[in-house]
Order: sequence, then structure tokens, then C-alpha cells
Amino acid sequence: MAHIKLLNEELPGIVGLLYYRPETGKPLTDLAETLLRGPSSLTSGEREIIAASVSYWNKCHFCHTSHAAAAAAHLNSGLALIDDIKAGLPNTPVSDKLRALLHIAHQVQGNGKNVTEADIEAAREEGATDIEIHDTVLIAAAFCMYNRYVDGLGTWAPGPNEAYAEMGERMAHIGYGRF
Amino acid sequence: MAHIKLLNEELPGIVGLLYYRPETGKPLTDLAETLLRGPSSLTSGEREIIAASVSYWNKCHFCHTSHAAAAAAHLNSGLALIDDIKAGLPNTPVSDKLRALLHIAHQVQGNGKNVTEADIEAAREEGATDIEIHDTVLIAAAFCMYNRYVDGLGTWAPGPNEAYAEMGERMAHIGYGRF
Repeated sequence: MAHIKLLNEELPGIVGLLYYRPETGKPLTDLAETLLRGPSSLTSGEREIIAASVSYWNKCHFCHTSHAAAAAAHLNSGLALIDDIKAGLPNTPVSDKLRALLHIAHQVQGNGKNVTEADIEAAREEGATDIEIHDTVLIAAAFCMYNRYVDGLGTWAPGPNEAYAEMGERMAHIGYGRF
Repeated sequence: MAHIKLLNEELPGIVGLLYYRPETGKPLTDLAETLLRGPSSLTSGEREIIAASVSYWNKCHFCHTSHAAAAAAHLNSGLALIDDIKAGLPNTPVSDKLRALLHIAHQVQGNGKNVTEADIEAAREEGATDIEIHDTVLIAAAFCMYNRYVDGLGTWAPGPNEAYAEMGERMAHIGYGRF
């Protein structure tokens, strides 16, 4: 049970919180919609992999599993991607550019100051643009917020990966605008 | 110099980033405006103290100093508040409720899962309501994002406290809607 009395205790993770406080729910979902589904030279699948990886590093089960399921829906890869993200994507074909951006995201997850000029240079050498570096840093930073929001209020989340399949499809193909 | 080429290198901290990517700047400022200046039973001064404290724990000089200056502007306390926040507010009269909420914010800054039922209960015993607990968790989580965004992209920030006086007044009395 969540630390505070929500309107509907059955809504998992962040969903109950968005309904509890729609004044903050709106900018929170606007931000996710722009970062993960807005126009970008990174695919939505790549961006959801960044979001899910950061959430895994922050030990947020709901955000990791749901965003990994959204990535799987974008990439038509099947739900095995959820556990592959935990292992650092050994079985998923991802570009060297995305691996360099994931390294930047991992640095940001620890602390923004951990990002070095060498990290940025390595991403540029794999073809990353300024806006891609910007969005990677902001996706990583934003999930350090969403993860803490979901876990800091003790929200409920389904356990097994399979329980997130339909949610991932909705996140990928309907989006974050309607929660 | 920032890690990416901004439109105006002279704009400090998050400001240059908001102009660089207005599509994300809008929800980021909408969220700050609602959390820090929107209707609430916590004063804006109290909420800015939470924001500044989290930023200090995350070692984000720009966010700590600017939001502490905003708190000082709300409270008419003078800029000594900036360093008092670093020391845990020994010289600032704050309620026991705010101290209990600051403890929750500190837990969230580490990881959302660090918040315990006992932390929530202690805040309730000092009179904290569900919505105040919700907003404290979300302010703390949101500053874990803003801090990483500002430092992860290596933005520039003025050094001395005095350089933030006017910025703090603007943040307190004009707000976050126009960046």
C-alpha cells in the first residue's frame, strides 16, 4: 500500500499518483511524451531503452519493467528485452552510438557531475549529435525523478514481466498524454 | 563551457538549456511553477528550502544557490540563508513539520526506496498532510532531475552567493513561467 491515501489503490506505479495530483501529472506526462515519443533522431525504442536502463540502475521495478516493455513494443523484440536490459543488452542488437549514450546516462544516474568531456567525446565519435546528447542527459535525469516519485511514495507494482506486456503496448502506441 | 553548444553561453545553469530545447523547457518550468509557487499549505519559502536542500545534497551549486536565494526572497531572511541551508538550518526558525519533511526529502535524494513508514509517521505526527508528503517527495525527486540536467550538461554558474540575489527575487516574485 502506498504511503499516502490515493484515489484508486489498484492503479500501479506512477499512474495512481498522476490521478492524485493532476496539476503535477500534466507536466510530468508532457515531459515523458516529448522525451520518449516526440520528434527525435533517436528512435522511441532507443529512448525507452535509456529510460528503462536508468530505472533499473535506480532499482525501480515498475519504471524499469514498464519502459522496457514499451521498448519491446517499439522494437517488436518480445519481452526478453526486459531482462536483457538488466544484463547490459548482451542479446539485443544496439548501435555503438546508443551504447555510448547509455554510458552517459549511467554517469548522470550517479550524479550529473560524473559526466566527463571524454564521455561526451566518445559519444560524438560514434556519431551522437548535441541534441541527442542533450536528450540522453535529460531522459536519464527525468527518470531519476520518476523513479524516486514512484518508490518514495511506496506505490504498488505488478511483479512478473508478463504483467507489463499490454501496458508497454499502450505506452508505445498510445503514449503518455492520457493517463 | 557546457558540454554542448548552447544558443547563448552566457545564460547560467538551467536557463540556457530551457532556451536550447523549449519543447522540454515548457513542462520543466510548468512543473517548477506548480510545485514551488502553486496553491499549497506549505509556503513557497518552505518549498524553496526543500528544493535548495536537495540541490545542496546533490552538490549542484547553481540550483542550491539560486533556490536558496529564492527562499530568502520569500522569507525576507537575507542571503545568509544560502549557507545556513548547507549547515542544516541551525540559524533559521523552521517548524518541526518542515524538519520532518526535509528528512523525507533527504531519504528521497538517496533513493525513493529509502523512505520508511516511520519517516512518514514522524511527519504525520508533526501535522504533515498527505498532499504535503506527496509534494515533498515530488519536489525532492524533481530536483534530483534538475540538478542532474544542469550538471550533466556541464553548464556554467556564477560563484558567489551575492550573484544570485536578483535571480532569487525574480524566481520568488515573477516565477518560472517566463524563462
